[in-house]
Amino acid sequence: MRFTVKRDELVKGLNSASRAVSSKNTNPVLATLKFDLNEEGLFVLGSNGDYAIRTKIPYKDSDGNDVIRNYEFGSVLINSKIVCEIARKTTGEELTFEVLDSTVVNISDSKKAEYQLNCIRSEEYVDFDLETEGTSFELPTSLFAKIVEQTAFAASTKDQRPILTAVNLEAADGTLTATATDSARMARKTTTINPDLTFSANIPAKILVEIEHLAEGSESVSCYINSRRALFTFGDTIVSTSLISGEYPNTKNIVPKVTNYTLEVNAKDLISSIEGAVVLNEDNKESAVELFMSPEAVDITSRSQQQGSSKLKVEPFRFEGQNFRVAFNSQFVIQAINAVGSEDVTFLFVGEMKPFVVKNNSDDSIVEVVTPVRTY
Amino acid sequence: MRFTVKRDELVKGLNSASRAVSSKNTNPVLATLKFDLNEEGLFVLGSNGDYAIRTKIPYKDSDGNDVIRNYEFGSVLINSKIVCEIARKTTGEELTFEVLDSTVVNISDSKKAEYQLNCIRSEEYVDFDLETEGTSFELPTSLFAKIVEQTAFAASTKDQRPILTAVNLEAADGTLTATATDSARMARKTTTINPDLTFSANIPAKILVEIEHLAEGSESVSCYINSRRALFTFGDTIVSTSLISGEYPNTKNIVPKVTNYTLEVNAKDLISSIEGAVVLNEDNKESAVELFMSPEAVDITSRSQQQGSSKLKVEPFRFEGQNFRVAFNSQFVIQAINAVGSEDVTFLFVGEMKPFVVKNNSDDSIVEVVTPVRTY
Repeated sequence: MRFTVKRDELVKGLNSASRAVSSKNTNPVLATLKFDLNEEGLFVLGSNGDYAIRTKIPYKDSDGNDVIRNYEFGSVLINSKIVCEIARKTTGEELTFEVLDSTVVNISDSKKAEYQLNCIRSEEYVDFDLETEGTSFELPTSLFAKIVEQTAFAASTKDQRPILTAVNLEAADGTLTATATDSARMARKTTTINPDLTFSANIPAKILVEIEHLAEGSESVSCYINSRRALFTFGDTIVSTSLISGEYPNTKNIVPKVTNYTLEVNAKDLISSIEGAVVLNEDNKESAVELFMSPEAVDITSRSQQQGSSKLKVEPFRFEGQNFRVAFNSQFVIQAINAVGSEDVTFLFVGEMKPFVVKNNSDDSIVEVVTPVRTY
Repeated sequence: MRFTVKRDELVKGLNSASRAVSSKNTNPVLATLKFDLNEEGLFVLGSNGDYAIRTKIPYKDSDGNDVIRNYEFGSVLINSKIVCEIARKTTGEELTFEVLDSTVVNISDSKKAEYQLNCIRSEEYVDFDLETEGTSFELPTSLFAKIVEQTAFAASTKDQRPILTAVNLEAADGTLTATATDSARMARKTTTINPDLTFSANIPAKILVEIEHLAEGSESVSCYINSRRALFTFGDTIVSTSLISGEYPNTKNIVPKVTNYTLEVNAKDLISSIEGAVVLNEDNKESAVELFMSPEAVDITSRSQQQGSSKLKVEPFRFEGQNFRVAFNSQFVIQAINAVGSEDVTFLFVGEMKPFVVKNNSDDSIVEVVTPVRTY
């Protein structure tokens, strides 16, 4: 195996594929990237065992200039961290890779730098299903990003109930529903989809966030889902991830159907008041604040036995209902407001300890639900 | 005690004084800032017990506009982290502080935000010597910064031998000499000073770095040194630090007097070759590299049993001597080159295991010495 590749293009490819490689992995094979040069181009594949990212570096760029030249097909596994550092730190325009025997690869910039790296035979790499098969649909990248941004943050980051670390994607009756919940709050986003599609898949939330970043700049994201894995393609990149097994909790009845109190406020102003109130509990990012509402005034307050108390006005506001008080995790509500993504945000309350809704008046496709907390 | 202060000016003052407060301190008094309003202005003092920073916020700005108004003299201790957060996160133009009784202070922006904070009587604060007394001299801030930048990095960051965490400042015969060494390398910078001055003081290197940052933008730094502490003033700020006791090691004879090999190279090119070589040992920032020199070529090489080897040319170069090889801590040499601060850098070698000199051909005031390491 041998090739000379434009360093810029290589760096771009490595930056994507290496994101799947975990530095904590104890399996030396999973610390490598798989380089595979065939008639289509140079494929670079990285994985942590649960998910994989593969990018293709084509022979020619969009202007028809050589990106890869002087080549001989083959494949090899090279330590991800080191090959990335070499590509980033060398200064030449091109890098030449040459596998000397199956255990040593020579990398040089033909001027200043030369490396002899230990490598691993490509046959030892983990086998990944990267076939674009299964139930498939395509979304504009901007819509895919919205779906991820408006839901993924609400998934759990704890491993106690793995199913809650997923975003559930469900297609039925022409609607694609993305749902995330960590059991204390829920985010749901709906969009229309081909009515022939019916599936439900639990996709790790953090992989969706990763894909959202990687897909930036591409036009659309294609998704292929089967019973074991979800596969996403965009530009020259494929991301494959195992699904999280198990039945996703039923969240259909979490959104309350009645409303006893309605509050409409400016999103930025409310966030600034919440952030101002929690300065007393700086060490606890998820500290609770209380929201007091009356037809005359809306206040955010916070108390800390050690430090004192804070009270911040929320102005202007529109409130319907009688005097009402609710306490909530400050971080949850800030994230819900940001996910709603509108200038003004509406809160619908049922009662002091009942889940409440955070929504955008002009966009019913997104709904955020937060469960209050007790304060004494 | 009561005052209304421009929030911008308060934030500036807090940003300086709070830098001396350690979040790890278990003494609750040292988690506070001391606010002291008297006829000169509002003094804000922070400390970790070993050093202290005090800034003054004057009543009027340079245009004669009110910075502090509606005041009543007094002093109080307020939690540093919380008062800083309040000053940064509130949005009003002014903040009003009012000590209600000696244990509660009310802070409000008179519009949106109001805080009732627990506070501590100012009498409980640690007593610091902030009198501008002792042997004194003044340096332009740019020269003070150079002295710190060219030496402090070479001090030890480990507490085993506290004296090595200092920069030794010595005045004798009209020369001010700053020396730092962690015993494997040394940095020395000299400058002229009033010939009447004679002193030697071991000042914590990290405090000097702190002062260098804080003094940015001021014209000069005045230093007052007595047997126990060093005090630095610039603009409206005073920094006081305990000296490190003990005799500073004799470094007079570390700079070799003979030279058997001389290498002159471009500073940036050498750094890029060293950084390119150490990618094989990414996890060890201080990994050793070898420098091979001959009249024909100069190479930086590195080896890792696990990963392989690297070889990077250094070009162009000027070398005087026979074939010669030396191995060194890559980080030490990169820092020495950066401290020398010139486009081209000169290395003077005596022998394979003898300390070598890194210097700037056109500036004899700065000399860096590095001890080689053994590699096999």
